[in-house]
Amino acid sequence: MTAESQLHELIATIQPVDEGFEGAARERLDSLTKPPGSLGRLEDLAARVAIVQRNVKPSGSPSAIVLMAGDHGVVAEGVSPYPQDVTWQMVANFSAGGAAINQLAGHARCTLVLVDVGVVADTSAFTGVVQAKVMAGTANMASGPAMTREEAAAAIMVGVRIAQDLHAQGVVMLGTGEMGIGNTTAASALTAAYTGADVAAVVGRGTGLDDAGVARKVEVIERALAVNDVDGLDALGVLSAVGGLEIAGMAGVMIGAASVGACVVADGFISGAAALAATRLCPAVSGYLFPSHRSAEPGHAVVLDALGLQPVLELDMRLGEGTGAALAIEIIDAACDVMRGMATFAEAGVSGADEA
Amino acid sequence: MTAESQLHELIATIQPVDEGFEGAARERLDSLTKPPGSLGRLEDLAARVAIVQRNVKPSGSPSAIVLMAGDHGVVAEGVSPYPQDVTWQMVANFSAGGAAINQLAGHARCTLVLVDVGVVADTSAFTGVVQAKVMAGTANMASGPAMTREEAAAAIMVGVRIAQDLHAQGVVMLGTGEMGIGNTTAASALTAAYTGADVAAVVGRGTGLDDAGVARKVEVIERALAVNDVDGLDALGVLSAVGGLEIAGMAGVMIGAASVGACVVADGFISGAAALAATRLCPAVSGYLFPSHRSAEPGHAVVLDALGLQPVLELDMRLGEGTGAALAIEIIDAACDVMRGMATFAEAGVSGADEA
Repeated sequence: MTAESQLHELIATIQPVDEGFEGAARERLDSLTKPPGSLGRLEDLAARVAIVQRNVKPSGSPSAIVLMAGDHGVVAEGVSPYPQDVTWQMVANFSAGGAAINQLAGHARCTLVLVDVGVVADTSAFTGVVQAKVMAGTANMASGPAMTREEAAAAIMVGVRIAQDLHAQGVVMLGTGEMGIGNTTAASALTAAYTGADVAAVVGRGTGLDDAGVARKVEVIERALAVNDVDGLDALGVLSAVGGLEIAGMAGVMIGAASVGACVVADGFISGAAALAATRLCPAVSGYLFPSHRSAEPGHAVVLDALGLQPVLELDMRLGEGTGAALAIEIIDAACDVMRGMATFAEAGVSGADEA
Repeated sequence: MTAESQLHELIATIQPVDEGFEGAARERLDSLTKPPGSLGRLEDLAARVAIVQRNVKPSGSPSAIVLMAGDHGVVAEGVSPYPQDVTWQMVANFSAGGAAINQLAGHARCTLVLVDVGVVADTSAFTGVVQAKVMAGTANMASGPAMTREEAAAAIMVGVRIAQDLHAQGVVMLGTGEMGIGNTTAASALTAAYTGADVAAVVGRGTGLDDAGVARKVEVIERALAVNDVDGLDALGVLSAVGGLEIAGMAGVMIGAASVGACVVADGFISGAAALAATRLCPAVSGYLFPSHRSAEPGHAVVLDALGLQPVLELDMRLGEGTGAALAIEIIDAACDVMRGMATFAEAGVSGADEA
């Protein structure tokens, strides 16, 4: 059985969340010792988790961030100021605990799961890196498809299985993160292809391009979309033509989370492009999905609009790795603690409004 | 020696933070394994803490939230839908662990310090409530000053001493929170008096007023400002005329934090009014001050503009208690972990930009 068949078989089993549970969630929130609605979006977040978990006392932990690493053939076009070696060097840095995500996942009490789904270099010597390489980096999308459909589906299924395994170990909240030099180019191409937005509107500086670099990136993406003759309605076709292995892997984490009823927090722009792919493949995923923050990358606003979801944080971050997901998981977990642990007016013997 | 003299003596000793340290802070941030600036406001927050601590490896913990409770004579004017008894009932709820702040402070690993600086009821039977009552609630500001200058100064000094004691016990980051039925009325009056804003522009629904209630609240505040003939340039005079004991106490926490070189995170609108009082009394306080979130109360935007400071979070919260401070402390503490704990490019052997 092909990976693509396995994927479609799984997707057919995924149920949307039960929006009808929101009434029970709001009733619980309004019974707690605070003016109704006074915790604002914190209440909305807790209610969303309650809906996913069908539990008016929801939990945001245990949590885990799945950090997918993969390389991009399109770097041959000069779309990043950093050399491709930085992908494996950063995997080594994640493994050794030296990166931003190590600090932020630790602070958020999230397990960090490192996955090589497509790094060019051999990462097997680095401690704790799940070896799930579908291929050693994608092909250059500017001259043909980045991957075959089957390779993209295989990368998705890597993420699906990791999400399902983590859930089987008790994880109720997943986050996505990534590393891959060149992957803002893939994310911009995916966003343009899925939403129909102008390429120039979804391209940013990435890790630090100057104006000439941004113009080159736009030209490369326009060439890739033309060469591959992408059809925005073919979700897997778009992902294989102009996506990335780590992006497909993150889409798989989202689909896998939905398949087992876990919440999944998308990091920034690259994770957002994966969320577009996941929800185009399986619209029911969106009920399980929490965008963490609004990235400083301009394409992310287009992604969030297309998803119809509001991020938790706006901190002008643009690092990736899952750093925004880790911070948002802290906030969502705190919101769940509030909804689960607060006393009701009746329990605490506190007077309600208009008992003055 | 009067409390007012003690206060002015202390204020004369407070030094502004050394903004010149920012260069060293930014140099450290730019040496870490991430594109420069890619953590956005997280880097700004870490740099601010580094400046306060004069340490390129800053720390956001141990932290504590000081929750000041006090009552307001102005409730006689019908400015809140909740009865005054809710103040002491909520103090009992904080003491028993049932309120939102108990969950959020716990999640943020913050010590929660409860202080009765002016509750009408006796709170001495509730475990863990610091007994520092300056008076049993303020007088009704609509018919005369809420407090004398000396009472306001005494409430400020309560906060100063608590902040200094916590710092002596190792706390490096303080947060402010409050409970006091009627205190959005006091906060609105203070904001109008200090900034010159129209009363109608700084009055909101508080814990849940309807339109008629909001109109009454505006009228009561206009009457209070007229009756007391407040002079916006007399910082302590404004605070005593239309403030509150818990607001003065929080201003004291901010001044006390600055006096010992600790960071202090202001919660929402009521804490923001306290921050206005503190920075009018002692402008150097603003370098130590971090606004946590932008409250849904309309007056808070006016406060933040007047302070010239940007909040960390925008979650439409309007509960008080220190709930926004607790969430922001988590983010600031995480930012400090990043700045302290990440590897540099040299340490991790990662290539920089343009080594492609």
